[in-house]
Amino acid sequence: MSAIRHALSTKREDDFAQWYQEVISEAEMAEESGVRGCMVIKPWGYGIWERIQRLMDDRIKAAGVTNCYFPLFIPLSYFAKEAEHVEGFAKEMAVVTHHRLVGDGKGSLVPDPEAKLEEPLIVRPTSETVIGAAMARWVQSWRDLPLMVNQWANVVRWEMRTRMFLRTSEFLWQEGHTAHADRDDAMTETLRALEMYRDFAETELAMPVVAGEKPENERFPGAVATYSIEAMMQDGKALQAGTSHYLGTGFAEAAGIQYQDKDGTQQYAHTTSWGTSTRMVGGVIMTHGDDDGLRVPPMIAPQQIVILPMLRDNDEDEALLAYCEELRKALVTQFALGEPLRVLLDKRPGKATQKRWAWVKKGVPLILEIGGRDAAGGQVSMLRRDKLWNEAAKANFVGLAKEDFVSRAAAEIEDIQSALFAEAKAKLDANISRADSFDGLAAFFSEDKRYPGWVEVEWSRPTGAALEAVVQKLKALKLTIRNTPLDSAPVTGNCVFTGDPAVERIYVARSY
Amino acid sequence: MSAIRHALSTKREDDFAQWYQEVISEAEMAEESGVRGCMVIKPWGYGIWERIQRLMDDRIKAAGVTNCYFPLFIPLSYFAKEAEHVEGFAKEMAVVTHHRLVGDGKGSLVPDPEAKLEEPLIVRPTSETVIGAAMARWVQSWRDLPLMVNQWANVVRWEMRTRMFLRTSEFLWQEGHTAHADRDDAMTETLRALEMYRDFAETELAMPVVAGEKPENERFPGAVATYSIEAMMQDGKALQAGTSHYLGTGFAEAAGIQYQDKDGTQQYAHTTSWGTSTRMVGGVIMTHGDDDGLRVPPMIAPQQIVILPMLRDNDEDEALLAYCEELRKALVTQFALGEPLRVLLDKRPGKATQKRWAWVKKGVPLILEIGGRDAAGGQVSMLRRDKLWNEAAKANFVGLAKEDFVSRAAAEIEDIQSALFAEAKAKLDANISRADSFDGLAAFFSEDKRYPGWVEVEWSRPTGAALEAVVQKLKALKLTIRNTPLDSAPVTGNCVFTGDPAVERIYVARSY
Repeated sequence: MSAIRHALSTKREDDFAQWYQEVISEAEMAEESGVRGCMVIKPWGYGIWERIQRLMDDRIKAAGVTNCYFPLFIPLSYFAKEAEHVEGFAKEMAVVTHHRLVGDGKGSLVPDPEAKLEEPLIVRPTSETVIGAAMARWVQSWRDLPLMVNQWANVVRWEMRTRMFLRTSEFLWQEGHTAHADRDDAMTETLRALEMYRDFAETELAMPVVAGEKPENERFPGAVATYSIEAMMQDGKALQAGTSHYLGTGFAEAAGIQYQDKDGTQQYAHTTSWGTSTRMVGGVIMTHGDDDGLRVPPMIAPQQIVILPMLRDNDEDEALLAYCEELRKALVTQFALGEPLRVLLDKRPGKATQKRWAWVKKGVPLILEIGGRDAAGGQVSMLRRDKLWNEAAKANFVGLAKEDFVSRAAAEIEDIQSALFAEAKAKLDANISRADSFDGLAAFFSEDKRYPGWVEVEWSRPTGAALEAVVQKLKALKLTIRNTPLDSAPVTGNCVFTGDPAVERIYVARSY
Repeated sequence: MSAIRHALSTKREDDFAQWYQEVISEAEMAEESGVRGCMVIKPWGYGIWERIQRLMDDRIKAAGVTNCYFPLFIPLSYFAKEAEHVEGFAKEMAVVTHHRLVGDGKGSLVPDPEAKLEEPLIVRPTSETVIGAAMARWVQSWRDLPLMVNQWANVVRWEMRTRMFLRTSEFLWQEGHTAHADRDDAMTETLRALEMYRDFAETELAMPVVAGEKPENERFPGAVATYSIEAMMQDGKALQAGTSHYLGTGFAEAAGIQYQDKDGTQQYAHTTSWGTSTRMVGGVIMTHGDDDGLRVPPMIAPQQIVILPMLRDNDEDEALLAYCEELRKALVTQFALGEPLRVLLDKRPGKATQKRWAWVKKGVPLILEIGGRDAAGGQVSMLRRDKLWNEAAKANFVGLAKEDFVSRAAAEIEDIQSALFAEAKAKLDANISRADSFDGLAAFFSEDKRYPGWVEVEWSRPTGAALEAVVQKLKALKLTIRNTPLDSAPVTGNCVFTGDPAVERIYVARSY
């Protein structure tokens, strides 16, 4: 193997935002589309999303939730039914007003004034209203509850400042919507979805998170309670990577989701909704990426092992390719993480070092380089992408007998999944600090730390104007309250904001 | 088993259109959403679509095509680049003109005049233009070709008259888009996709089709050649169930998809596109449905076997459920059609006869009814849904020893798949007639046949005004040319329209 040094032009510590964009570009995950705020998700990025979709879908189905599909368009009148909800979204929605174009007589096309819709249609920013209308038709009796549906869909929220995967005007997501007979059952489902997300983030994405309740000011518009999973990016900022909402009876009242209970009385259902999106892909990049590009956890890697034959355009190539193909076949019968290994034999023409670098940037978990001498000697050279590859790259390649590699391939893949989680978990734990006063908190974030991480404080859970005062104080420091962790330790002191006796702990952080 | 007779209220022969709507409703596949032209796809309908998606996606990937995702919105200017293309679609597109709502001062929300888009955005009716723009960025050299991508997406074509699954304003589909160095390579891909669709329709959907080229007047807007698969519904009408287009260099010229060939010359790529949609679900209903509702081919059935314990709300239920669960576990280890059997144990409360009827209407391939006596005697009662169930229902149930059923379950499922195809193929073959003159053709369709099927004629493949005259003559009889089958027998006579020597055969039919 040659030790030619490739590198991204930006390191994480120099400019994290620029590094993020460069990883997306160099790993060929996505690009600007030319359509404002919308990205093109390219094969490697979409392949990761497909893995996320399939694994999340399995979990959703296992929980007894069934997939459906609801309309892209929501009539304006539906949307306006839930007052707080429309207030929360009204500022950023795409509005369809016409259903036909017509020539303007000057060679251009314009919306046809004759084809103006009587009622504008909103491109769904989320589907509580239109799914609520369906639930109102489907629910009559207590026997129809719980009703649990999910959809995989695109949604649009008009964003002024966009960033690929993290905040785009159109994004892809799943949204679960459930209706229940009472608060307890709905709350159980809200927390079940949250726990599903927490475990998914940690198991599938190898991304440690804190699951907890969002403060009142960060609730989903119209929700009674909003929960989130929050992950720590390598710049110390928090990323909200999934949310679950208990909606009380507000949406049911707006949509008319009523059922007859066992006593024959009409009751409103208690509803929930929960969602995760392509934003998770951004979280994976900022959790696992290094200065060589992306590192994909094997669970969600479109390919887990890439075999790179070092082709020389000569007579020996045929034997080399045959050796590689034999290796590929031996590998795909192995199971890792509960599924057959996903292995690609990359036969494309091109210099081996360049091809290797392309796969390093894409973050494929394991690269096998096979030269003619390896083939002749029954060897492979293995590079684990969870280790930094280009510092003493030669040392990071491990030579093994082919049979030895085949027998340990699944264990290597599983070990990479664990190693990425362990590394991220250690970073998370190392970057959570505690403060006992607002001054301490402020000092922490005003210090010349580029990536200060999160600070845990105790507070009295103020509401209304008192909460707003806290939010504004934090905003001045560019901080937000992330959540109150579900597994919070008991409080011992006073609220760092109000001085009142504390009732719980919260995480405060800069965030995406 | 009780022999209570349930029935749909409409038979196919009485009112096929009404029967179709009733099957969709009674099988709980979809319903009107309240949003004009858009349906809600319910769990059973969406489950069938998910099966179709997964199986089609496997085929697409196996062909070396990779999935991506492109924006929902297409700027008007992109769309206007390909003149014929925009002409073909301009009449029926949803136009986004605003990105915010605002209160109108009278308690309602209206599009905010301050948030009018400088350039309207079109909700994609198909994505050639926006994908072409991406391909122009991705293709530089002959080495980048062929470039083959696919996306699963929702698209919108504003339809005045809609029918669930067959023609809805929003529908779900996959659209493949490929770019090639030359005509031959592009045409090979166009026909590969067509053949993939033909084989998919016949193998997965058990729906026999004719693959062929559409006449000039039925080409996709901007295409050089359009091919389709056409299926015959039980009312004799044709359903276009998938299309594949060779687009020549027109879209490449409009979008600027250029590559440097091996000689260093800049060339325009030759592109193709091909798609199938939720329309296929409508085709499955009208191909396989009977007067008891839907019959789902096992390949695409969300559940292939439903076990119905005849619960009696007494002490024996526990043993009965244990027996059923043991049966379910034995079945899910069996493979049929290349995958593990999909088996549901339906433990929900409710009368066994009503539950059976619900599953019959949904068309689950095999129903097993298990009573207490069956459980005690190690028996099962099997009903194959490919046979009409309610005529002498008792006779259609087959009693078997549990072990015997388990060992033959996979074979039964595979036999149902074959039987449904054979039945549909026999219908197709029986309902294709031939005519040697236009009068013969006209007489055929003017006879008092409710479901006349298709007529095969020879023609001279007229173009331009001569073709238009043919189209109008047929239109007066409510007929259209479906396609020229690829495997057409040699022609022997003259064109039934022009009297000129014939060059090929075409199918003429009423259609959806």
